[in-house]
Amino acid sequence: MRVGVIGGGQLARMMVPAAIALGVEIRVLGEGPESSARLAMTATGEPGDLDAVRAFARAVDVVTFDHEHVPQPVLRALVEEGVAVRPGPDALRHAQDKLVLRRRLDDMGLPQPAWAEVADADGLGAFLERAGGRAVVKTPTGGYDGHGVRVVDDPHGADDWLAERPLLAEELVPFRRELAQLVARRPAGDVAVWPLVETVQGGGVCREVFAPAPHLAAPTARQAREIAHRIATELGVTGVLAVELFETEDGRVLVNELAMRPHNSGHWTIDGAVTSQFEQHLRAVLDLPLGDVAARAPWTAMVNLLGGPADGDLDALVPAAMADQPAVKLHLYGKAPRPGRKIGHATAVGDDLDDLVFAARSAVTLLHGDPA
Amino acid sequence: MRVGVIGGGQLARMMVPAAIALGVEIRVLGEGPESSARLAMTATGEPGDLDAVRAFARAVDVVTFDHEHVPQPVLRALVEEGVAVRPGPDALRHAQDKLVLRRRLDDMGLPQPAWAEVADADGLGAFLERAGGRAVVKTPTGGYDGHGVRVVDDPHGADDWLAERPLLAEELVPFRRELAQLVARRPAGDVAVWPLVETVQGGGVCREVFAPAPHLAAPTARQAREIAHRIATELGVTGVLAVELFETEDGRVLVNELAMRPHNSGHWTIDGAVTSQFEQHLRAVLDLPLGDVAARAPWTAMVNLLGGPADGDLDALVPAAMADQPAVKLHLYGKAPRPGRKIGHATAVGDDLDDLVFAARSAVTLLHGDPA
Repeated sequence: MRVGVIGGGQLARMMVPAAIALGVEIRVLGEGPESSARLAMTATGEPGDLDAVRAFARAVDVVTFDHEHVPQPVLRALVEEGVAVRPGPDALRHAQDKLVLRRRLDDMGLPQPAWAEVADADGLGAFLERAGGRAVVKTPTGGYDGHGVRVVDDPHGADDWLAERPLLAEELVPFRRELAQLVARRPAGDVAVWPLVETVQGGGVCREVFAPAPHLAAPTARQAREIAHRIATELGVTGVLAVELFETEDGRVLVNELAMRPHNSGHWTIDGAVTSQFEQHLRAVLDLPLGDVAARAPWTAMVNLLGGPADGDLDALVPAAMADQPAVKLHLYGKAPRPGRKIGHATAVGDDLDDLVFAARSAVTLLHGDPA
Repeated sequence: MRVGVIGGGQLARMMVPAAIALGVEIRVLGEGPESSARLAMTATGEPGDLDAVRAFARAVDVVTFDHEHVPQPVLRALVEEGVAVRPGPDALRHAQDKLVLRRRLDDMGLPQPAWAEVADADGLGAFLERAGGRAVVKTPTGGYDGHGVRVVDDPHGADDWLAERPLLAEELVPFRRELAQLVARRPAGDVAVWPLVETVQGGGVCREVFAPAPHLAAPTARQAREIAHRIATELGVTGVLAVELFETEDGRVLVNELAMRPHNSGHWTIDGAVTSQFEQHLRAVLDLPLGDVAARAPWTAMVNLLGGPADGDLDALVPAAMADQPAVKLHLYGKAPRPGRKIGHATAVGDDLDDLVFAARSAVTLLHGDPA
């Protein structure tokens, strides 16, 4: 069983331990020698380089992804050659293009924020009027971690982006909090649904995850499960799917975004669930039976390490974090610290969520080092 | 932080996921392209090849081991060059030579079976007389998994071995069961002691492990902790130490053997303890603070996969095992199945030991395939 992963980021990196346990041979097409997943890297190439991707794909049984940046023509060329691409291009385009997703969710009748495709300032002005004077505009493709997202209250507030392409405009949802529903689906059709989690964002970036989402109403959990199950099934997703959701003040959930790969909101599963999202992704793309998605303890808290010490010497801070929090599980991505960059996370698993959040935050704080 | 592991077996393989999580760069000096730890292999060489070992050691911060087969002269040459070798040669010789261990344990006053060094049939005959007519004879070095061990009742029963070297003769201990105490010690001196486990052996090979050891009397647990703590400290062990013990009918424990590396009796910790033996070994040899050794659930059952399908196609059996036992954690070593060879293990973690043993055994039975 040989899996090829396009992209050498931390998601590919964290698939490696799962591959080792399952006896799966994992190969990574990475960006270069600094790639987070460099240990399993067997080739270097850009995701848009058809020749590089094709040569890589020929040596594995199934191709999957660390990110959504492989262009559709490359994906379709692989499929035409008979390569097993999971998720496939027809599913993946919903994670690549936010306008494609919004249209599809409307067709499916699933709850989402009010939205419009806007081609110019007039279009954005009209949407702003409908939406109460403020809106979120997003580039349909290429955005991540807050990039390609802007809040505007002026019809000309996105003229720079509109010069290049139409945009997605969305209402600013007055949400209570953000949730994420992680699921996995294999080609045979089985779907596994992990417990719903709460995600805490800051500056467009995931900061913390609490699993399961605290104070969760049963109907909210049920809606989230049903939405994610329908998206996975009706879009024909294979592998892990993360559905980011807004929970509204009145307990409804609205679909925010999708990721068709292991996702930051699922990192808690490495330590907190019987089957991690990385193991499950490998099982799913190999069309193997899915593993148990139960939580291993009442609560799990996951805190991202964003940035790190100014001098770049993360190793020097590890002993203090380990000494302070011997039960916290550290996950360091082998990436150079830069302000705001995701370079690791810390997870605590147990019975008291407040204690666990404190423990994981403490470890992460120590890994940041003293502010200068 | 770069760790070099001499030997590319499954113990080196299972250090790799821990290294990935900790952001530790791991390099393996393996036997060849079929080595279980081939993913992290950066060099090939025999453990007795000083030049190969020396070149490998120069590129890492600390050298540790997958096995005990690096000869003392090679270890001492590395130490003289200033390489951090953990565990060091003075400790490691107690795991390399059973006669050295027996003498040392006597000096320390620790409980062990009656034993003697025997140089010829007369010596063995004298020991047999003292020991009730039957004894276990062992080659002092090089034995593993039942190799180099024989039960004799005839003074000439080991003449073939005695032609080559003196042997260790031990009384046949009428034990109730076998236990194993896993500990880790870092150079700074801290020792961490996991829960005591029961090991079930067959044909000299570990078959199953139950953690913690069921029906354990508190004084037995205390003796085991104290023995392992003393051995780790007084022998100056760094890294993981497994102390294999006999529990006698009257509740005493006797030291059987040592391993100064992650050990089969500790595989349960990957899924069943907050800190696995593989993560702890890396922490310990890097002189980092040790992690929490608490169990993650009341019980863990670990069952070895010994051998596999006659046609060698283990992959073909994986789906049935996964489908039957979605909560069992499979660990496959990437080794070709051969009769009796350890090629993987299965672990189940939870609240009811009987259920867990059944689940892990079921998965392993399915991976064996139908007997021909």
